[in-house]
Amino acid sequence: MPEAHLPELPVVLIEEAIRAALIEDHGLAGDVTSQATIAPDAKATAVLDCRETGVISGLPLARAAFAALDPSLKFEMLFADGDTVEPGADVAKISGNARAILGAERVALNYLCHLSGIATHTARFAKHIAHTKARICCTRKTTPGLRAFEKYAVKCGGGANHRFGLDDAILIKDNHIAVAGGIHEAIEAARFFAGHLIKIEVEVDTLDQLREGLKAGPDVVMLDNMSLHQLREGVAIVDGRISIEASGNVDLDTVKAIAETGVDMISTSKITMSTKTLDLGLDIAID
Amino acid sequence: MPEAHLPELPVVLIEEAIRAALIEDHGLAGDVTSQATIAPDAKATAVLDCRETGVISGLPLARAAFAALDPSLKFEMLFADGDTVEPGADVAKISGNARAILGAERVALNYLCHLSGIATHTARFAKHIAHTKARICCTRKTTPGLRAFEKYAVKCGGGANHRFGLDDAILIKDNHIAVAGGIHEAIEAARFFAGHLIKIEVEVDTLDQLREGLKAGPDVVMLDNMSLHQLREGVAIVDGRISIEASGNVDLDTVKAIAETGVDMISTSKITMSTKTLDLGLDIAID
Amino acid sequence: MPEAHLPELPVVLIEEAIRAALIEDHGLAGDVTSQATIAPDAKATAVLDCRETGVISGLPLARAAFAALDPSLKFEMLFADGDTVEPGADVAKISGNARAILGAERVALNYLCHLSGIATHTARFAKHIAHTKARICCTRKTTPGLRAFEKYAVKCGGGANHRFGLDDAILIKDNHIAVAGGIHEAIEAARFFAGHLIKIEVEVDTLDQLREGLKAGPDVVMLDNMSLHQLREGVAIVDGRISIEASGNVDLDTVKAIAETGVDMISTSKITMSTKTLDLGLDIAID
Amino acid sequence: MPEAHLPELPVVLIEEAIRAALIEDHGLAGDVTSQATIAPDAKATAVLDCRETGVISGLPLARAAFAALDPSLKFEMLFADGDTVEPGADVAKISGNARAILGAERVALNYLCHLSGIATHTARFAKHIAHTKARICCTRKTTPGLRAFEKYAVKCGGGANHRFGLDDAILIKDNHIAVAGGIHEAIEAARFFAGHLIKIEVEVDTLDQLREGLKAGPDVVMLDNMSLHQLREGVAIVDGRISIEASGNVDLDTVKAIAETGVDMISTSKITMSTKTLDLGLDIAID
Amino acid sequence: MPEAHLPELPVVLIEEAIRAALIEDHGLAGDVTSQATIAPDAKATAVLDCRETGVISGLPLARAAFAALDPSLKFEMLFADGDTVEPGADVAKISGNARAILGAERVALNYLCHLSGIATHTARFAKHIAHTKARICCTRKTTPGLRAFEKYAVKCGGGANHRFGLDDAILIKDNHIAVAGGIHEAIEAARFFAGHLIKIEVEVDTLDQLREGLKAGPDVVMLDNMSLHQLREGVAIVDGRISIEASGNVDLDTVKAIAETGVDMISTSKITMSTKTLDLGLDIAID
Amino acid sequence: MPEAHLPELPVVLIEEAIRAALIEDHGLAGDVTSQATIAPDAKATAVLDCRETGVISGLPLARAAFAALDPSLKFEMLFADGDTVEPGADVAKISGNARAILGAERVALNYLCHLSGIATHTARFAKHIAHTKARICCTRKTTPGLRAFEKYAVKCGGGANHRFGLDDAILIKDNHIAVAGGIHEAIEAARFFAGHLIKIEVEVDTLDQLREGLKAGPDVVMLDNMSLHQLREGVAIVDGRISIEASGNVDLDTVKAIAETGVDMISTSKITMSTKTLDLGLDIAID
Repeated sequence: MPEAHLPELPVVLIEEAIRAALIEDHGLAGDVTSQATIAPDAKATAVLDCRETGVISGLPLARAAFAALDPSLKFEMLFADGDTVEPGADVAKISGNARAILGAERVALNYLCHLSGIATHTARFAKHIAHTKARICCTRKTTPGLRAFEKYAVKCGGGANHRFGLDDAILIKDNHIAVAGGIHEAIEAARFFAGHLIKIEVEVDTLDQLREGLKAGPDVVMLDNMSLHQLREGVAIVDGRISIEASGNVDLDTVKAIAETGVDMISTSKITMSTKTLDLGLDIAID
Repeated sequence: MPEAHLPELPVVLIEEAIRAALIEDHGLAGDVTSQATIAPDAKATAVLDCRETGVISGLPLARAAFAALDPSLKFEMLFADGDTVEPGADVAKISGNARAILGAERVALNYLCHLSGIATHTARFAKHIAHTKARICCTRKTTPGLRAFEKYAVKCGGGANHRFGLDDAILIKDNHIAVAGGIHEAIEAARFFAGHLIKIEVEVDTLDQLREGLKAGPDVVMLDNMSLHQLREGVAIVDGRISIEASGNVDLDTVKAIAETGVDMISTSKITMSTKTLDLGLDIAID
Repeated sequence: MPEAHLPELPVVLIEEAIRAALIEDHGLAGDVTSQATIAPDAKATAVLDCRETGVISGLPLARAAFAALDPSLKFEMLFADGDTVEPGADVAKISGNARAILGAERVALNYLCHLSGIATHTARFAKHIAHTKARICCTRKTTPGLRAFEKYAVKCGGGANHRFGLDDAILIKDNHIAVAGGIHEAIEAARFFAGHLIKIEVEVDTLDQLREGLKAGPDVVMLDNMSLHQLREGVAIVDGRISIEASGNVDLDTVKAIAETGVDMISTSKITMSTKTLDLGLDIAID
Repeated sequence: MPEAHLPELPVVLIEEAIRAALIEDHGLAGDVTSQATIAPDAKATAVLDCRETGVISGLPLARAAFAALDPSLKFEMLFADGDTVEPGADVAKISGNARAILGAERVALNYLCHLSGIATHTARFAKHIAHTKARICCTRKTTPGLRAFEKYAVKCGGGANHRFGLDDAILIKDNHIAVAGGIHEAIEAARFFAGHLIKIEVEVDTLDQLREGLKAGPDVVMLDNMSLHQLREGVAIVDGRISIEASGNVDLDTVKAIAETGVDMISTSKITMSTKTLDLGLDIAID
Repeated sequence: MPEAHLPELPVVLIEEAIRAALIEDHGLAGDVTSQATIAPDAKATAVLDCRETGVISGLPLARAAFAALDPSLKFEMLFADGDTVEPGADVAKISGNARAILGAERVALNYLCHLSGIATHTARFAKHIAHTKARICCTRKTTPGLRAFEKYAVKCGGGANHRFGLDDAILIKDNHIAVAGGIHEAIEAARFFAGHLIKIEVEVDTLDQLREGLKAGPDVVMLDNMSLHQLREGVAIVDGRISIEASGNVDLDTVKAIAETGVDMISTSKITMSTKTLDLGLDIAID
Repeated sequence: MPEAHLPELPVVLIEEAIRAALIEDHGLAGDVTSQATIAPDAKATAVLDCRETGVISGLPLARAAFAALDPSLKFEMLFADGDTVEPGADVAKISGNARAILGAERVALNYLCHLSGIATHTARFAKHIAHTKARICCTRKTTPGLRAFEKYAVKCGGGANHRFGLDDAILIKDNHIAVAGGIHEAIEAARFFAGHLIKIEVEVDTLDQLREGLKAGPDVVMLDNMSLHQLREGVAIVDGRISIEASGNVDLDTVKAIAETGVDMISTSKITMSTKTLDLGLDIAID
């Protein structure tokens, strides 16, 4: 396995997301409490600290939140996205204008805690299957507006990404097969439509469907809601010709056994939705 | 207690959110699988069904997702936001153009499952404290970009809302007190700054702070991380003059006892972040 | 009275407003006159001077307008928002690229003259009532798109802000009372709906309504279009328990007498709409 | 004089402006007062009535505000933009969902009162000079973000428009002349730069400048801050060859005499900034 | 070959594109010529006709342009995108408000002529190679802001799409290979990074590189700037295991021979940039 | 002829255009190939070189593309917009972060090649008519969304601009004349509607129409699709009183003869649509 680079979020997406989040949190009047009680030129020092073990994700968003309010704030990263941190670890230090630090705090933390929660949960799955060739991957079940960031967090946690939208890969399900007149017809139509740079995955529920589907030459096959026994048989049938994705009933208790069947990918929405946020906080001292 | 109306999401926010989510999911090419396999004029019928017990929230967003792709789609609501539904319940029926239904499916479900998860979890807290005057309420710990919707979901679940941003209420914490030179000075400054239509809440950690804070006349006091004993004493000290919000260590195991101390509000981020999504799905039959 | 801080406009709102105003003024071709006649690298020095006595408001917007066209322009503030300036006073000095200074001139001045006009007019009202405890405050009658800035200008002029939108405070008027089935019912419904961090104001036209309304415990009462005699009686009836806002027939001739009745707030749209702009100009010398 | 059509606002601008104004007024929670007290399906009837004599402007914006909240609202225009109405006149009737009517009220009125104020004030100037060939026209001194609407209101009031931005006409002032090396050089440079579809106006302060400027063949000349005597001489010098715009010291007391000097246009910022809003209100009866 | 469906543009992209184009063309004042000369309620009938042989693309954009100005306009499509039309053919009929038709004309035609030009030119390439299995495809060399539409037009003309952006497929070029330390290392790194749903293409300049690259198992190989002889050898080397894309020196004179070498895809920027617009016009008769 | 300045693109338009183009090219995941193969801190040096003779246009957009991804990139311009460059010329040098350079490459080149193609083609027309007083000018037939940039490129190539939109000049065609009741009536209506700062052009097809039109005093007359003989007669009829624009059948073969008839402007869509892009590339060496 090559040493993998971490993904990098598009700069423009970060800027837009922070701008929108600040508008949401500051409304038309901004941080009225700080305006009432803290002098405009007061300075502060803050430490972003982690209060439980987890994998960090979202530091570029946090940094951008502080920079958006005051480009002269000093933001020192002590860890990087993808790092595992222990309780009590200082993740970053921020110093400069007090109002700016207080005004960006919640936006920075809301992103950071949410994404680190996803990275941390993904890492738990990844650890369970590290002894196999299988990888854990996400789905399109993401929080609306945050897909780019949540898919990024999955990679920070050691997971892989499924398609990003309806447009960048073909995923043929039962409805498409029914309308197209069969699994072969559906894949043929997809291949012609999609061209040579889009992968075609077909979802099958039975081993018979799998055998039929393989003949039409998809790039990936999804074995949906199959038993471990079926998965193993599926792996034997495919015999390394294409990638196999297992889906359905994936959780921390089942993932190891699924991975050991020999599949390549295990997809689940559990790593992007329903994850607990990682507990990070900002300790601010006003000078 | 008056029979309360449910909240209503601003129309313009719904439209913007759906537009952004569709751009995110459709990219530059749209649903390539359906384009490849389903005829442009194929029709379908779909049922939005709930697969576990929960409180629904987000139907106006779901309806808007389908309408955005094809205004002629028929969307029939069988339940309303705030309703509790049982497994197997049909929540809505959609019929019309097949590609439009498939193209809006994930955006509609991502909103609906996420918000219904929040409403459902809030309802659990609310049920535990229904025999008291206390209410459960959210914080500013929300998913960036979704604050309006998550606060709405909290109300659908029977909870109450804390401030929506830094701008619509004053919340004086230790840093503000330290800089202002005391709790009295901070509240005075806030009162003058804020005018007559913004509430002032002060966060206290000890009963001594509470006694001192009360003299300056805040509208709400937050008792942060206090023991049940301290909370009861705090309630006695305040003696009904202002609202009391309890915060810290709130979960389904502790909330009943906290409510029974006599506080008015119990705030927690647990109902907006880290909630499990409610399991809803779309069963589509192409005609 | 504590020494009050001036409000601070959210940075993101300033940037968006300046961007939109520059697009409006520059169109698709920019300042064609300067492009035709002034060399791209010509330098200039400009003085922003005030031509009548008034209170300044909007300097951060002016500064942002120049910075948007050329971040290297030097902008030196000689006064700050909230300062009273005399005719002939130099408010700020700008130097650097000549085309950038000319291109930002009108956007900077249009904001500055408009907001300073509001601050100046507000200050006139504030001066008339400075010997009382009453404060002058604005309403939601503001220029569409400029509410954040106009409310800010009111504070620069020594006034106070009413609610910023339909969402951050409850204001119960006759229609709501009629539909709710009475003043008591309306306030009860509002209190339950709003939660503990939103103030409830009720508008009353008669002293009988006031007496009835007080029983339901609103946070603020608006005495609408009452005579001075009625206002004085209203103040006596309320007896310091809640804030009183007087509304209707407020102008520079009447405001002193209204304030002397003992009310807390006097609200009027006259300070945000229909105000004369303050006469400021930019004297530019091209090097 | 041909019977003139009224201007028509670009549809897209109306939609964007209403969307932004509704976001501003509704925030993240919408009209909480109505949500608390009025049933979601309550109906209402409303009359938009004028409370003083004036010229109406902005009805398409008002209509769009109501339609944005509920496309099924019935909006009946009883007058049109440009019409003069008397106190007590019903300008429009609206009926349908009560919350939608209340929720759009302030946005509709803020536009309508502001623009009708401009139209009304413009009409006063226009009336004073109706016996001459001169017309009153606006400048680029407009409220940021509202230029299209304010210029439209000026036309509704019988005035004419000056250039809309820095890009659609050349206006050569002293700085440009100084840098270009003379009035002749500046106009030559402008003519070559601008092409054949942009007018070139030159501002002159003295009759000598006027004589010199005329030789270079501008399309319009602005006589800035000249006495009536000078204006009359200027008219004689120009002798009908190009348009003459008078500027400076224009108010309701001076405009008639200025117009009688024979100039073609009289420009003033007084009709767009510093105008009093026209008093219109919405009388709502909930069914 | 299955009968292929045409692609379908995402609805939201169409709406955004038309809105932006109308703002661009209408500015702050709209169609002043029509406002001056045509009554607001005048009706017209228009025929969108083609003046040379070509393939139509962009009708949904044209329809949206008219609908944006007046939803009640009748727009009757007589041909569909992808159809080949002859000179004199009526492509669509529009009837209704005259100003709306005139106001949308240029926006509708600018899209339609540009995209039909691309479709037409693509069809020429496609025709030259129709006897082979090769297909013509576009690149990322597209007009900024129009990529979705230009890629759509390529499909309307019978071509295929290359990747839509930097994010939806891996394309390994010399720089990546050099930095990664070899073709094998680069593909390995890409495969791990990309996951199972993104295709990996590697660009090779020599047959030796091709042989080396094949070992690492890419999904597609691009033979860049190779001679026909080299292409034929490359096809033999690959021997049907993966897709082959030929690139470089592709024009109408060379494409047939390139296709006959047995490659699968032939990519060229010539079908998206530098294409002649198709000559379509709008004949309008005002009733 | 005065030495003309080049036009300058509005800064805000450049920023918006680059932001949109980067979102288009980077999608939700950015440059996945570089992320997989190139270290985050790798450095590179790049040369933007021209591969054929042409006129450069778009360098400020290219520079902004690189700066948007990394403000610390060094961008050194070796030529300026409007310069003619020979094959092999280095137009600019860029150095700094390797991923940023690769990530901005296509956006920068797509603008630069497209606009330089327009400038180059315009320059060819301009050269053919340089011995006459006539100038070549563009129309409103531009790529949607790029009008500001394409009109700018025309000026870089030595051409002139026609109106920028429907709003900044009056162009009276046959439909307007028919509806208005005659050429005289149409011009009268336009003049009153437009005010004194908008030019009025009238399109005529015959010399009789020209004679009639001249009486109403337009600012410009367009002789549409006339023979050289007719054009010469038209020039004689107008006799220098107003500008003459020739339109129709303009190409590189005909433009010289048209210019020699004595007209002032020759307008054609050929310089903005259907132009070949100029061949520029980026040679990148990773350090």
